[in-house]
Amino acid sequence: MSSEDLETPKEKGSTGEKQASEAPKPVLSSGSFLLVDYTIRIKETGELVDTTSEKEAREAGIYDASKLYKPRLAIIGKGMLLKAIEDELVTMSVGESKTFEISPEKAFGQRDPTKVKVYPIRKFKDVEAPLVVGARVNINGKEGIIRSIGSGRVQVDFNPYLAGKTLVCNVTIKKIITDDKEKVQQILHNRLPDVDIQKFTIELAPPEVVITLPEEAYLLPNLQIAKRLIAKEIQENIQGIERVKVIELYTKQT
Amino acid sequence: MSSEDLETPKEKGSTGEKQASEAPKPVLSSGSFLLVDYTIRIKETGELVDTTSEKEAREAGIYDASKLYKPRLAIIGKGMLLKAIEDELVTMSVGESKTFEISPEKAFGQRDPTKVKVYPIRKFKDVEAPLVVGARVNINGKEGIIRSIGSGRVQVDFNPYLAGKTLVCNVTIKKIITDDKEKVQQILHNRLPDVDIQKFTIELAPPEVVITLPEEAYLLPNLQIAKRLIAKEIQENIQGIERVKVIELYTKQT
Repeated sequence: MSSEDLETPKEKGSTGEKQASEAPKPVLSSGSFLLVDYTIRIKETGELVDTTSEKEAREAGIYDASKLYKPRLAIIGKGMLLKAIEDELVTMSVGESKTFEISPEKAFGQRDPTKVKVYPIRKFKDVEAPLVVGARVNINGKEGIIRSIGSGRVQVDFNPYLAGKTLVCNVTIKKIITDDKEKVQQILHNRLPDVDIQKFTIELAPPEVVITLPEEAYLLPNLQIAKRLIAKEIQENIQGIERVKVIELYTKQT
Repeated sequence: MSSEDLETPKEKGSTGEKQASEAPKPVLSSGSFLLVDYTIRIKETGELVDTTSEKEAREAGIYDASKLYKPRLAIIGKGMLLKAIEDELVTMSVGESKTFEISPEKAFGQRDPTKVKVYPIRKFKDVEAPLVVGARVNINGKEGIIRSIGSGRVQVDFNPYLAGKTLVCNVTIKKIITDDKEKVQQILHNRLPDVDIQKFTIELAPPEVVITLPEEAYLLPNLQIAKRLIAKEIQENIQGIERVKVIELYTKQT
């Protein structure tokens, strides 16, 4: 994607006063719609945690064919990304990339030493995972990682995998979405990623938006749950829209 | 229900010729929409097989709280009821009741003696059903009934339960539906019986029909499959309708 593809943010209703200031006030605030590329690694090991880049995912060996590697929708203030990432995004402009660290406190918390438990090895006779250091095991419904095995005892760490880790995060704002129809389209795409984004028909008629789904969406698992969430996200994040009408059209097979 | 409630069938476009004949030609034919009450028993034992009457079901001890005991939709020629029942229905008029027998050939076929198998009793060590005469057991994925047990051998009958049985069937035509909107409503009710039939909004605008579902339908299991079948049944059975538009409306919670 060249920089020409990127939408330039425009300040709405900018006044002479604002134009006069040296550093323009960021246009991004709570409720802003962004498309963001990101890559998150663990600082100490460089291990890739999550990324929107297919290339990075392949190189790290965590490529997942069922995932879409495309810029991801973030609505500032809605918790779609970590708060610490949102806090950086609102200081940035379109096309800008930034690399920053996130402390454990602002990511997945400090490690809690009391969450490391020791069990006799016989406790594991019914556990399916291989009994090796680093294996993830499920004990009494809680997931943990085996830290050490020795003299009939197994140490299991129930802290979240990323607890105590400092993250290194690289983000790029690919686009700021200001058009309401495009906002609806991106909310649909985010909840129904398997459907071709071009195939949704969207008619804005505030206080209503009418969405016609393409036939390929009709038999997706969890479609009804997705519709409910889509409607809620539209109503909460797009000014003036109170009703979401979803249409499915069945045409006679000839 | 009094006889006044019952719709009187009207012959469309009847000519002087037809009016002159003594016995009016039955108005029912392939494609006619009926609401039918029925009770089906096994002739030799009187055992109740199926009924639309809650009272009969309760008396026979086969009452099922998840079932709706109401007249059932039948579209003649569509296999919604046994062909032998449809053949009687088309000779009847609204409000008429009739009791008749259906031979095994016209119901579930004759019993096939080669479908009765004998197994050593050890074959049943993993079968969950109690090992008594009359128990239904599943062997190698096929369902059968234990006919006899003795000297280490078990006789299992894999014929369909109703094979070889003569049925006694009582049917009443409660209504003949001629109004297209009501036909759509009954097709919806038949596929989505848990939804209050009054809550479907139906707009006929041939070649399209627009159906707005009530919110209580949105999270029904198999809703998407039901919609597909509803659309197909409407398109195949209601003249002039080629497109079925299904609308769900999500309104902002305040």
